[in-house]
Amino acid sequence: MTTTPCVLALDVGGTFMKGAVVGREGVIRHEMRAPTPQRVSVGQGLDEIAGQLRSMLELARDLQLEVVGVCVAVPGIVDEASGTIRYAASLGWPEVPVSQELSSRLDRQVLIAHDVRAGGLAESRVGASVGVRDSLFVAVGTGISAALVVDGSPVSAGGMAGEIGHVTVPDQATTCVCGRHGCLESVASASAIARAYGDLSGTEVAGAVEVADRVRAGDPTAAAVWERATDALGAVLASCAAVLGSQVVVVGGGLSRAGPLLVEPLTRRLIDRMGAAPAPRVVSAVLGDAAGCLGAAMLAWRSTDARTHA
Amino acid sequence: MTTTPCVLALDVGGTFMKGAVVGREGVIRHEMRAPTPQRVSVGQGLDEIAGQLRSMLELARDLQLEVVGVCVAVPGIVDEASGTIRYAASLGWPEVPVSQELSSRLDRQVLIAHDVRAGGLAESRVGASVGVRDSLFVAVGTGISAALVVDGSPVSAGGMAGEIGHVTVPDQATTCVCGRHGCLESVASASAIARAYGDLSGTEVAGAVEVADRVRAGDPTAAAVWERATDALGAVLASCAAVLGSQVVVVGGGLSRAGPLLVEPLTRRLIDRMGAAPAPRVVSAVLGDAAGCLGAAMLAWRSTDARTHA
Repeated sequence: MTTTPCVLALDVGGTFMKGAVVGREGVIRHEMRAPTPQRVSVGQGLDEIAGQLRSMLELARDLQLEVVGVCVAVPGIVDEASGTIRYAASLGWPEVPVSQELSSRLDRQVLIAHDVRAGGLAESRVGASVGVRDSLFVAVGTGISAALVVDGSPVSAGGMAGEIGHVTVPDQATTCVCGRHGCLESVASASAIARAYGDLSGTEVAGAVEVADRVRAGDPTAAAVWERATDALGAVLASCAAVLGSQVVVVGGGLSRAGPLLVEPLTRRLIDRMGAAPAPRVVSAVLGDAAGCLGAAMLAWRSTDARTHA
Repeated sequence: MTTTPCVLALDVGGTFMKGAVVGREGVIRHEMRAPTPQRVSVGQGLDEIAGQLRSMLELARDLQLEVVGVCVAVPGIVDEASGTIRYAASLGWPEVPVSQELSSRLDRQVLIAHDVRAGGLAESRVGASVGVRDSLFVAVGTGISAALVVDGSPVSAGGMAGEIGHVTVPDQATTCVCGRHGCLESVASASAIARAYGDLSGTEVAGAVEVADRVRAGDPTAAAVWERATDALGAVLASCAAVLGSQVVVVGGGLSRAGPLLVEPLTRRLIDRMGAAPAPRVVSAVLGDAAGCLGAAMLAWRSTDARTHA
């Protein structure tokens, strides 16, 4: 009996871990979702992730699939080459050699990927920027970070690429979670938009998507908060897109659910601020929260194929 | 008799063409300099460049060297892959298939390179950013453009990468050569600095280096012009360095002759504006106006070696 090969992909998000058993050509054979370990030690967190992978390995065996690669997408400053998280605020982790720790727990090679770079790769292969060689994916959620796809591949720069969340934007004095003032993230992230609207209007909102609803309903406070956020994001993205020569900017993360309300002002800002250089097309991400998991699966397949052909 | 191989490199600048006959390991066997054809048709310009290459071919023959590659570095929007200049304001050229035109005139393959990307490559291999995988080279002269070195290689994005000269900087209303207002180039280029000082002080200066001298001598008008320029440049470079995760920013072009007067304020601005992300080291270029020619020679060797090993 010949076995069918597959890879395991797991995206460790702030709230949920999303896993998938993925066949060649990206066919998803099984998906799972489990809560991300919260307020546990690094060792316990790694144990829980390893446990999740172990149950996915068993599942693959039950499905009579042969697991040929495993990749885990994680947030933070992630150096894929050494398999290390340098720092992950959302997990509360310091520097951790995640790849090595998980590989020894499972007694097989486990790769790690950066969640946003994995998402950007997936959007460029099967999502919003298919067929585009040079694109910029920007994830706007609790924080803001970007993934550069240059000549078809995500750029890591030892984990430092795409860290635009704390670039200072002019004339903004909001205090950021990092303790500094005027960071892009403190003005234009989904959480910053919700917080700013609450502060200015005295009305608590569930999140930035509710602020977007209020913009559409004609609320002038919501419109001012929204304009400040898209102005700041547009200013930083203009420099990024100009230096990269990006043809497309894909906006993902929670804020992208605002759709045209986000895409249209960003398009205008990029045209205004990029002057003589051709501004990229701005589009919403299409893969939603599946992007990181799909990208991790692609990286697992890529590594497996490189090993096979070496 | 065995012949020694060499490549020909020619950097077509705004004023001069700089050529070199370059051996393996970058040994320069001969250098030349000739005026760049001015105010001639595209065809005449190409004829003059071809003539220059022909005399370099003869010279190599006299030196008993075998020419195994030829690369010409040119300014503008340059798509190296197709060998085409998309637009070159300083030469007054529209879209021209330069590689094909020169190859047919010389009856041998002539590659083209972008002058700033070639310079950035040279600085990363034998200049100011040796040993650094991810660096950003910014050439500040009549205009401003950048070269991204990502994982050791220059990024082109079809010729569009690095075009930061016309990114709009906040609160600047100066009219740019492109007809728009507030472009980075209209505030922070060497020519803009000289012009702004002349306008504000009523004193004509030979160039930005003279403005730098006046800053050092305590001239408050010169200091204000200089601060405005370095602020604007720092703001755009902060976003670029953050998204790229650059470890080093190399400042080249005419303005880099200002040395620490430029490097120190840019270093401060990058630290200020990059917040939580580690700011890159800022250094002056070290290869001067030889960088483009050296980079073109490296690209010629790289292409020759790829052909030989294919």
